[in-house]
Amino acid sequence: MRAIDIIAKKRDGLALDKTEIDWFVQNYTLGSLPDYQAAALLMAIYLRGMTRGETVDLTLAMADSGERLDLSDIADYCVDKHSSGGVGDKTTLIVLPLVAACGLPVAKMSGRGLGFSGGTLDKLESIPGFNVQIAGERFKQQAKSIGLVLAGQSVAFAPADGKFYALRDVTATVQSLPLIASSIMSKKIAAGAQGIVLDVKMGSGAFMTTLDAARELAQAMVNIGADAGRDVIAVISDMNQPLGEAVGNALEVIEALDTLRGGGADDLREHCLAIAAHMLRLAGRGVRYTDNAETRALLESKLHDGSAFAKFREMVVAQGGDVQTIDDPTRLPQARVIVPYRAPESTYIAGVAADAIAWGAFELGAGREQKDDAIDHAVGLQVHVKVGDRVEKGQPIVTIHANDADRLERCIARLDGAFTYSATPVERLPLFYDVFRSDSVS
Amino acid sequence: MRAIDIIAKKRDGLALDKTEIDWFVQNYTLGSLPDYQAAALLMAIYLRGMTRGETVDLTLAMADSGERLDLSDIADYCVDKHSSGGVGDKTTLIVLPLVAACGLPVAKMSGRGLGFSGGTLDKLESIPGFNVQIAGERFKQQAKSIGLVLAGQSVAFAPADGKFYALRDVTATVQSLPLIASSIMSKKIAAGAQGIVLDVKMGSGAFMTTLDAARELAQAMVNIGADAGRDVIAVISDMNQPLGEAVGNALEVIEALDTLRGGGADDLREHCLAIAAHMLRLAGRGVRYTDNAETRALLESKLHDGSAFAKFREMVVAQGGDVQTIDDPTRLPQARVIVPYRAPESTYIAGVAADAIAWGAFELGAGREQKDDAIDHAVGLQVHVKVGDRVEKGQPIVTIHANDADRLERCIARLDGAFTYSATPVERLPLFYDVFRSDSVS
Repeated sequence: MRAIDIIAKKRDGLALDKTEIDWFVQNYTLGSLPDYQAAALLMAIYLRGMTRGETVDLTLAMADSGERLDLSDIADYCVDKHSSGGVGDKTTLIVLPLVAACGLPVAKMSGRGLGFSGGTLDKLESIPGFNVQIAGERFKQQAKSIGLVLAGQSVAFAPADGKFYALRDVTATVQSLPLIASSIMSKKIAAGAQGIVLDVKMGSGAFMTTLDAARELAQAMVNIGADAGRDVIAVISDMNQPLGEAVGNALEVIEALDTLRGGGADDLREHCLAIAAHMLRLAGRGVRYTDNAETRALLESKLHDGSAFAKFREMVVAQGGDVQTIDDPTRLPQARVIVPYRAPESTYIAGVAADAIAWGAFELGAGREQKDDAIDHAVGLQVHVKVGDRVEKGQPIVTIHANDADRLERCIARLDGAFTYSATPVERLPLFYDVFRSDSVS
Repeated sequence: MRAIDIIAKKRDGLALDKTEIDWFVQNYTLGSLPDYQAAALLMAIYLRGMTRGETVDLTLAMADSGERLDLSDIADYCVDKHSSGGVGDKTTLIVLPLVAACGLPVAKMSGRGLGFSGGTLDKLESIPGFNVQIAGERFKQQAKSIGLVLAGQSVAFAPADGKFYALRDVTATVQSLPLIASSIMSKKIAAGAQGIVLDVKMGSGAFMTTLDAARELAQAMVNIGADAGRDVIAVISDMNQPLGEAVGNALEVIEALDTLRGGGADDLREHCLAIAAHMLRLAGRGVRYTDNAETRALLESKLHDGSAFAKFREMVVAQGGDVQTIDDPTRLPQARVIVPYRAPESTYIAGVAADAIAWGAFELGAGREQKDDAIDHAVGLQVHVKVGDRVEKGQPIVTIHANDADRLERCIARLDGAFTYSATPVERLPLFYDVFRSDSVS
């Protein structure tokens, strides 16, 4: 087999077969094919597309390029969730303890943030002492004993994807549907769960900025999962405005704790209840939790009776975090300067650009520019308004948590561009736009 | 400027501007851009194309990536010719002495052959002692004193093209019209001549196998030349069958000498007269040589009065070749085995596949597989028939000149696949299909 023939075939718009895809992925991962041939193939894929079959073959080839996690000694059937990344998206911190409290064990490896998007690990590390390096037997042991573990990636899932992704990033081939879908799904399949809930964010703060693009991605990922023998639910959720109020690491942990105690922002709680219900639905595989009202009642009870919070607390204890900060979140890292950002007039909120809000938090130091940059866990924003809200002139619409005057100024400049206003009432944004399911999901 | 933005722009089908093309070519040539970004750009160009303006900008950027030859102290106006490569194409060996004998000085740097195509330098080196390493002042001095020099490339024309070409070769991006046209024209423009005659071969033995593709290439190259201030004539000539009879290095020199003495195969002589007339036409720039009959009479006189041959002989003397081999071509390298290949029946010749003939000569050792392979100057084929000829059973249609029994056998196998026959008369092939001129050519 020759790389150039595979490139030429895709260049001419023909579908590659499984042996060709396997051969290319294996040899590229091994380093026996040069980057320039992979770059030419990626551009040909970008411009020519891939069939459903090709996309599945690419996903499985990448999933098989490294270790696969075996979760079978944790539970017969494990469920994973994935978010395509949003602003203020602390869903994992809430949903995982919530479903664990319902008896569904979850063992998840998460990532760190880069650019304006925050990573789950970064948020958890706001908790002093919290150890994300839980690997091997200890990872599984904790999943078995308390039903919840949230750690960094000790296993290199789909190293081929890592290599391809780095190359896509510098060859203008990131925004290709089959490449995006196979990249996400290769890691999810390698992570071992049979059931996968995909939260595809759509809007100004998301990777997918249009509903059509989000639908295509959701359907493509459901197809891949189905063809790979997984049960998949993909929801399309709104990311035109931040989810919940908090954007920033410790602030998001605090909001997650509020929600786990039955409080928190309405949109965030509703979002989490829906994702958790989908996870329970997969875990029941059509047997339990098909009654939506019953599922919702169960989940709400876990928030109100303290058991979801208790599950989170158990995890913090197990992973060495300072549990006092959980019981009293004012002990979490606090910024020195806390200032309100006020509505410039009496008006309706017409837009809260999620990306601008994220960049505002980034300016404060909540994110990292380079992979190894330190981040400031204390800083961030609390956005108190949603699209459609009525505000009065001078009303605080954001609370800024800053540690540096220059950074505060740059943040405010970002906020000035984040809001749009309307003299007349504005419709609220939906939480979800669509749901896709593999045929296996009843 | 960032490479990724330039790649993305072309990926999206937009035209790059001159500063972007210059920046990319300069930085890639310097090694400050990696191959994988160039590979992604090349695939995007392959699939999205380039405008006329972009193609000119790319050509000039590549022409300026290395030295440009200054021919101004040889003559006010110099003319170059280029062939896109054919089988049995010894045109340069005939046309250059012919136009030099008409008073048009020519100073040309040529290349070696690779694969089945023979190079002018390889052919010249059949002449014992002939030195192709004529560089710098000596190159110009010879052009001035005898009006003819044919040497190897002492100057690296358009090194960017060399680098891009090597990358195209391994990324399935060779067959792109703007890339092919700019590659050829960048070297022609760097070679310094104001007038350029392009001989675009079309057929089974050529790079362009259809008339449409050849026309597109010819027009594209004329456009580039015109926009770069050159006077250009591009002809499309037939390469469905070999040009002339001889295919192989010494055999082609012998046929060239025959033609220079007023003999040789009709098709070859006619082809050379046409190319030479175009060169004279450019040199006259509309003043002299616009009368076709007059030009033809002049050129024919130079073949018949021995002056074209004398010019070739002068060049051989000047470049240290053994002139006895020119005066008596039987002294040129001779193969040990000379055998006829015969017509299998009484029939008409319907096809003489130029590529199969070339591979037949290649099997004998006339070409090289790798860049540094030695070649056998003595071996090759003389193909005595043209499409449309009537042959009788047993009539020799090829004379094989071989030095090795195994190679002879492999050659015969190639010849068996080279000919097609017809019981009914077959039309002859034209020599030329079309001519394109820049507007500057009257």
